[in-house]
Amino acid sequence: MKKLIKNGVIVTATDTYEADVLIDHQVVMAIGHNLDEADCEIVDAKGCYIFPGGIDPHTHLDMPFGGTVTKDDFETGTVAAAFGGTTTIIDFCLTNKGEPLQKAIDRWHEKSSGKASIDYSFHLMVSEINNDVLAELPNVIEKEGITSFKVFMAYKNVFQSDDATLYRTLLEAKKLRALVMVHAENGDVIEYLVEQALAEGNTDPIYHALTRPPEIEGEATGRAAQLTQLADSQLYVVHVSCAQAAEKIIEARKKGANVYGETCPQYLVLDQTDLEKPNFEGAKYVWSPPLREKWHQDVLWQALKNGDLQTLGSDQCSFDFKGQKELGKDDFTKIPNGGPIIEDRFSILFSEGVVKGRISLNQFVDLTSTKAAKLFGLYPKKGTIAVGGDADLVIFDPNQERTISADTHHMAVDYNAFEGMTIKGEPVSVLSRGEFVVKEKQFVGKAGHGEYIKRAKHNEPYQLKKVLPTNS
Amino acid sequence: MKKLIKNGVIVTATDTYEADVLIDHQVVMAIGHNLDEADCEIVDAKGCYIFPGGIDPHTHLDMPFGGTVTKDDFETGTVAAAFGGTTTIIDFCLTNKGEPLQKAIDRWHEKSSGKASIDYSFHLMVSEINNDVLAELPNVIEKEGITSFKVFMAYKNVFQSDDATLYRTLLEAKKLRALVMVHAENGDVIEYLVEQALAEGNTDPIYHALTRPPEIEGEATGRAAQLTQLADSQLYVVHVSCAQAAEKIIEARKKGANVYGETCPQYLVLDQTDLEKPNFEGAKYVWSPPLREKWHQDVLWQALKNGDLQTLGSDQCSFDFKGQKELGKDDFTKIPNGGPIIEDRFSILFSEGVVKGRISLNQFVDLTSTKAAKLFGLYPKKGTIAVGGDADLVIFDPNQERTISADTHHMAVDYNAFEGMTIKGEPVSVLSRGEFVVKEKQFVGKAGHGEYIKRAKHNEPYQLKKVLPTNS
Amino acid sequence: MKKLIKNGVIVTATDTYEADVLIDHQVVMAIGHNLDEADCEIVDAKGCYIFPGGIDPHTHLDMPFGGTVTKDDFETGTVAAAFGGTTTIIDFCLTNKGEPLQKAIDRWHEKSSGKASIDYSFHLMVSEINNDVLAELPNVIEKEGITSFKVFMAYKNVFQSDDATLYRTLLEAKKLRALVMVHAENGDVIEYLVEQALAEGNTDPIYHALTRPPEIEGEATGRAAQLTQLADSQLYVVHVSCAQAAEKIIEARKKGANVYGETCPQYLVLDQTDLEKPNFEGAKYVWSPPLREKWHQDVLWQALKNGDLQTLGSDQCSFDFKGQKELGKDDFTKIPNGGPIIEDRFSILFSEGVVKGRISLNQFVDLTSTKAAKLFGLYPKKGTIAVGGDADLVIFDPNQERTISADTHHMAVDYNAFEGMTIKGEPVSVLSRGEFVVKEKQFVGKAGHGEYIKRAKHNEPYQLKKVLPTNS
Amino acid sequence: MKKLIKNGVIVTATDTYEADVLIDHQVVMAIGHNLDEADCEIVDAKGCYIFPGGIDPHTHLDMPFGGTVTKDDFETGTVAAAFGGTTTIIDFCLTNKGEPLQKAIDRWHEKSSGKASIDYSFHLMVSEINNDVLAELPNVIEKEGITSFKVFMAYKNVFQSDDATLYRTLLEAKKLRALVMVHAENGDVIEYLVEQALAEGNTDPIYHALTRPPEIEGEATGRAAQLTQLADSQLYVVHVSCAQAAEKIIEARKKGANVYGETCPQYLVLDQTDLEKPNFEGAKYVWSPPLREKWHQDVLWQALKNGDLQTLGSDQCSFDFKGQKELGKDDFTKIPNGGPIIEDRFSILFSEGVVKGRISLNQFVDLTSTKAAKLFGLYPKKGTIAVGGDADLVIFDPNQERTISADTHHMAVDYNAFEGMTIKGEPVSVLSRGEFVVKEKQFVGKAGHGEYIKRAKHNEPYQLKKVLPTNS
Repeated sequence: MKKLIKNGVIVTATDTYEADVLIDHQVVMAIGHNLDEADCEIVDAKGCYIFPGGIDPHTHLDMPFGGTVTKDDFETGTVAAAFGGTTTIIDFCLTNKGEPLQKAIDRWHEKSSGKASIDYSFHLMVSEINNDVLAELPNVIEKEGITSFKVFMAYKNVFQSDDATLYRTLLEAKKLRALVMVHAENGDVIEYLVEQALAEGNTDPIYHALTRPPEIEGEATGRAAQLTQLADSQLYVVHVSCAQAAEKIIEARKKGANVYGETCPQYLVLDQTDLEKPNFEGAKYVWSPPLREKWHQDVLWQALKNGDLQTLGSDQCSFDFKGQKELGKDDFTKIPNGGPIIEDRFSILFSEGVVKGRISLNQFVDLTSTKAAKLFGLYPKKGTIAVGGDADLVIFDPNQERTISADTHHMAVDYNAFEGMTIKGEPVSVLSRGEFVVKEKQFVGKAGHGEYIKRAKHNEPYQLKKVLPTNS
Repeated sequence: MKKLIKNGVIVTATDTYEADVLIDHQVVMAIGHNLDEADCEIVDAKGCYIFPGGIDPHTHLDMPFGGTVTKDDFETGTVAAAFGGTTTIIDFCLTNKGEPLQKAIDRWHEKSSGKASIDYSFHLMVSEINNDVLAELPNVIEKEGITSFKVFMAYKNVFQSDDATLYRTLLEAKKLRALVMVHAENGDVIEYLVEQALAEGNTDPIYHALTRPPEIEGEATGRAAQLTQLADSQLYVVHVSCAQAAEKIIEARKKGANVYGETCPQYLVLDQTDLEKPNFEGAKYVWSPPLREKWHQDVLWQALKNGDLQTLGSDQCSFDFKGQKELGKDDFTKIPNGGPIIEDRFSILFSEGVVKGRISLNQFVDLTSTKAAKLFGLYPKKGTIAVGGDADLVIFDPNQERTISADTHHMAVDYNAFEGMTIKGEPVSVLSRGEFVVKEKQFVGKAGHGEYIKRAKHNEPYQLKKVLPTNS
Repeated sequence: MKKLIKNGVIVTATDTYEADVLIDHQVVMAIGHNLDEADCEIVDAKGCYIFPGGIDPHTHLDMPFGGTVTKDDFETGTVAAAFGGTTTIIDFCLTNKGEPLQKAIDRWHEKSSGKASIDYSFHLMVSEINNDVLAELPNVIEKEGITSFKVFMAYKNVFQSDDATLYRTLLEAKKLRALVMVHAENGDVIEYLVEQALAEGNTDPIYHALTRPPEIEGEATGRAAQLTQLADSQLYVVHVSCAQAAEKIIEARKKGANVYGETCPQYLVLDQTDLEKPNFEGAKYVWSPPLREKWHQDVLWQALKNGDLQTLGSDQCSFDFKGQKELGKDDFTKIPNGGPIIEDRFSILFSEGVVKGRISLNQFVDLTSTKAAKLFGLYPKKGTIAVGGDADLVIFDPNQERTISADTHHMAVDYNAFEGMTIKGEPVSVLSRGEFVVKEKQFVGKAGHGEYIKRAKHNEPYQLKKVLPTNS
Repeated sequence: MKKLIKNGVIVTATDTYEADVLIDHQVVMAIGHNLDEADCEIVDAKGCYIFPGGIDPHTHLDMPFGGTVTKDDFETGTVAAAFGGTTTIIDFCLTNKGEPLQKAIDRWHEKSSGKASIDYSFHLMVSEINNDVLAELPNVIEKEGITSFKVFMAYKNVFQSDDATLYRTLLEAKKLRALVMVHAENGDVIEYLVEQALAEGNTDPIYHALTRPPEIEGEATGRAAQLTQLADSQLYVVHVSCAQAAEKIIEARKKGANVYGETCPQYLVLDQTDLEKPNFEGAKYVWSPPLREKWHQDVLWQALKNGDLQTLGSDQCSFDFKGQKELGKDDFTKIPNGGPIIEDRFSILFSEGVVKGRISLNQFVDLTSTKAAKLFGLYPKKGTIAVGGDADLVIFDPNQERTISADTHHMAVDYNAFEGMTIKGEPVSVLSRGEFVVKEKQFVGKAGHGEYIKRAKHNEPYQLKKVLPTNS
């Protein structure tokens, strides 16, 4: 049955206007004033914005890390995402050196198949370039529609690649038209700093931050940007946390380099002092890169406003405090890195960004949805509200308030790093391809509704096609 | 009668999609697939883009200058604009020191009333700040809807204001929520360089460029940006022509200043060598700021791509070669500054920018229409294609080619500075508030259709309202 | 009689070494180990450094300002200078528009003739460029040896020149090989800010700072630097007080411009909060540019260390608190600008710079003496300790401590802005051309010993000549 | 017997003056006018400058490289150096992983002992940091007086260290007060580019340059500078060849980092096109980093002028064209890197720098001698002309011209990369600790005169001590 959303205010990365939205065949079929209500389920969005569904370009669901596994999988993770206004995620498919890429991808399909309540796609980790990998990459793009490759400059002896691998990945990406992503921290130096800290008996969570100073994130970001310019390729720096890294991205862009940056809500709202909380509570705030001194936040907000950083990812990677984060009780290096944030990414940016006047309403949409869609080849089916696009929509009440809490969140973990924070503006209902996943704050979706999406190549020209006439 | 545009591809600053556009009551009433054709005039846009009408934020029509008057007035100028895909212009209302502002505004209403075939608005020149001016400014904004004030840093003893006037204008603009515009060149130094050139017998057009070097545009731009930061106000730098000026804008923006920049097609395509053409032909290329060495073009294109410059104005200011430009035959300072460009602004950017891959299709719309609408309070009635917005539309065939020539242009002057340049992509039909002004390349509009538009204050939140149900 | 200084450590801008210094015929005749003591007055410098006499490139002695006159004239000022280790000053000769330059210079000769106990020279203020001025300038250089011209960008309607005058001065200076100096603040904007402050009843000394914000010093500095680049000339920015101005100098230098900067002890040690002292004490801290927020000090120290600022001037311009500073009791604009600092410039830099490890001993010499000598054509007779150079020497005990106080200083004013500050390192004896002016902390010089020095053109190659054999 | 140099013009990093120089006990005993000639050998320096002997901080003598050995050893190399006005060299002592450092140092003592005709010292290569190395380093400094450690970021699998090693070396250097030196190129990326070039059959010398682009020198330089800031240590970047690297050094210095840079004559005079010379002649121009496009030269000269680069090294590393360079006839990677330049470093800088007006005479001394002496703990015995300092002197005729040629040079190789270049200004006589090594262009020194010099710690305060009275 068709749906007609009435009385809402549609917001895109450019426009803000009052209109009805007609949904049919999973897509937005028409937008207009006084559209014909016949044969339609009427949805009243009075007092609400209608946003394109959020796109979270950075999640880790059902991922093994340091001998344990993230609590949220593709089922709980996508439910929480939907509650938070996110209708598409791109998860990182980890690979193992020596193993065929396809095998890793197949494993990721297994993890996700039949579980997701919203659409999803994969990035692919690249940790080595050799003839086997070179032979497989075209398939990865053509057959799997995976058009973004991630290289780690940190996590020595685990994920870390050397500069030649990064450079070759950039060259291949240019040829195949994929986007290279980097985790930009200098892993060699971190390893030494960590050894030193432990040798000196410094085992508390705060040493996680102190052994990963912002200088080495800035360094690695500059290095990756420089190699990108040399390769004349394209780069996306994940989870930019500090002024030093933002600065390098701005410089590279000014010189014409195709370099993009993502930041995350935690870096905009939390800071390094959180890692000093007593009773090992600091472990809840262990992300890599780590939280920074508070002044970095202003630099990141300014970069978002100016378009020097383009997207907001969650870097969702959730572990229980009990039993998981606690693994590092006596040694901060054993604390699993990451936190539960897939659910609050969208609302935190609205509350801290739009409500507080730091960014405009249209920039909010751009940062949470449109730019990610365009950079990662999901556009134009995802990432906007336009006729012919998927009806991934968020009906959002800007006046509702909520206090974030582990007691009420939908992620499968026992704490929330934003516990007690009051935010203004909430998703009320969320649709994925025209079907309600969340309706009036109740989950009404189902595992398996979410489909795997093959993405277009980087910078593929886009144009929404006409949906054929129907008799429905 | 309603109109239904079918088979075209709608392009906004964000989106690109195939859909029908229903026009009624002068606005876009619906966008959709398979809209009801009943009671509609059907317009076939097959193979064409549908762009929001261009907004030219910088025109001088019917303007006296140096003892002569621009050839194009609000009648010929708006016809030419319409042919070129522009459906709104903002013209500069000149004022005289000591004269009430309202008197100047009234004079500009007289010039334009009943003549324009497309909508128009005014910027107001501010050349002094005194109690009379301070008393009038609120009225200018509230009653006339003029929310942008222009200050000249050049044209010593003619238009030029001193820094205190600029600074006070910035302070008033902040209070009243207007946008300050500057012509940024150091008039004092220019005056001396001009005197020197003439004293040395250097009277040819090239000396127009040599006496206005880019360093002094950079200097004045930096000065205006610095004063804007001090005043915590907002600034729009008109006709940015060179690297030195773009650099200052980028720096100021990086520091969080609300500084915006406009460039013009002439600076993207022509260069200083044009001023050396024989037989006084160089006079056709006399703009202020002057054309620059060719390498500056790359800097400007990069700034457009990165969003460091936000708009494209024409700086339309047309004089005949015969009889007008010729006034400066023996003295370059007597050459009336400016040229006929209102008609080709839009197509040149498409051809040189989109077709040559320097900017995206959506950026093209942003640069020619959306950003100007947002900065100058025309948004959201103008500047986009959204339900409820004015049906100012351009049906644009990207495959048509045209050679620019004075023989075929619609401006009232006897030459064209782009004579012989072949451009790809042409407006086929142009609508203003739902009415054809140009239809299949024929003018079908009428003088007086164009209305004067009162503009919103700078950064006024915008939202298109619902158009009431109709019985038509 | 010859003098032989023994047991001291000679310090130049490059070298630090223990050696005897033989003085004869007013110059350094030899430096060596175990020099022949016959016929010499032996001076024991044990435990002391021997520095080249300080050069203060920025003094205002016997200068009328705002209806009053500086307390220190060439007699008291040079005595105080000598106590502080300064053996040469360059004072600013003020000119009046319309009056022949020579007349102003003659007036300055009258003020100084027979009064100074150390050598001195003049800079010349240029406030207009016309045919009379152009005709006189070569004479000023050739006959008077005045090879530096100062232009004011502030003090509207008093000293201020417009940009064309500055630019033309730069052009003339290039031709004549003189160095242009600027007071870089935007006088137009200051005038408005001052009017506003007074209109709002803000008359306290702190408003002196608040009406001259660092942004407008940065602006004017950038403007002057840009015009210097355009003119391909040379510029010396006096009394750089803030980060914004230092930044512009660094930028210009990096691009290859011949731009130099001077700062003053007050900007390195005092800050804006001093202007808020109660009981009108803030008036003692009124300099233009004003004292800045404390964080600017770090930027200035770093610029000194890196060679981005080259000299330290005192900007000596002393007025009594009683009767003079008090003129501004009810109106900060009536407070005479400036303070007594000629005496402590040298020691403050040693104590705060060398003792605290911010600059090296050799840099200290460079900043207080050598660079000023080189920039202003005093070198090599002044500014170093080398055979053949004037025996202008300071015997300096790095271990003595002193507390600065108006009770003990030798300037003719009733307060000292550094009152109570303890400094380490003191001049013990000071020689001018081989004669003691200060000996064991007692003044033993005489008015009239000091000679007027004609300076070499800017960047004239230098080489100390051999002193002819003597029979003494 | 004492020597008295008469009639010359002494030049230091600060001063230029005519005076006699008395040499006794290997040092400068006095400088003065009309010094007593009794018991002295008189040396007439009429028409000549007297410079402090050049210090070449970067030589590779008797060094194995790629299966061959440099042609010049400590005997021929120091003779050539002396002819060129250099009186001290610091050679790089190579180490092998796993081998005690002392063993490598002993080997270098063996190579040099009894061979050098001028004084010399060693830098120490550090390629790993482990407990053995940590245990030895204090000895290296205290016992051997080696206070500079070099780390390679290039030459993968040969010399290259990882970032942790560089960082730890910086930390140790801070603790022990040594200066860290880096060869800054990204070895990982180079290795890949080289593999690719060879795989594509690109074996000519020009591919040496094309596989080591300036971007990766800039990258590595920025990386090293960033790690230095993090470690709060000190860094010296050897052989800076390009704008990208200079830029990083300038940035770091502006932020207050203790980062220094050296360039070499080849980068100031030669360029990348030399590598394209036919008949394999390009092999003569194979240095690492490679020669760059010509425009980089201007950037390097400007950086020398502004003090942003501090020294000029030769990177002497000589191989015959016949039999050695020819090893790479079919594969550019087999061409031994480096060239014979120890002899012409000094004169090329004089001719291209001073004579052409790019730097001053005093800057020339600073760049060729003083700064290196200060940075590397040779000062003040070396690096200047001051009483008490070693009588390492160059009597230099600025008017002599010479054409560089392998036919006449004193290096042991069969070609000269500057063949045919005419330079103005030549050393006539050279003294090392008061003894002639070169006299009137004849070698009069002897192998073994040169002594090994233990150097002071980095930034050790310096002061020349008094030489005791003598009875000679």
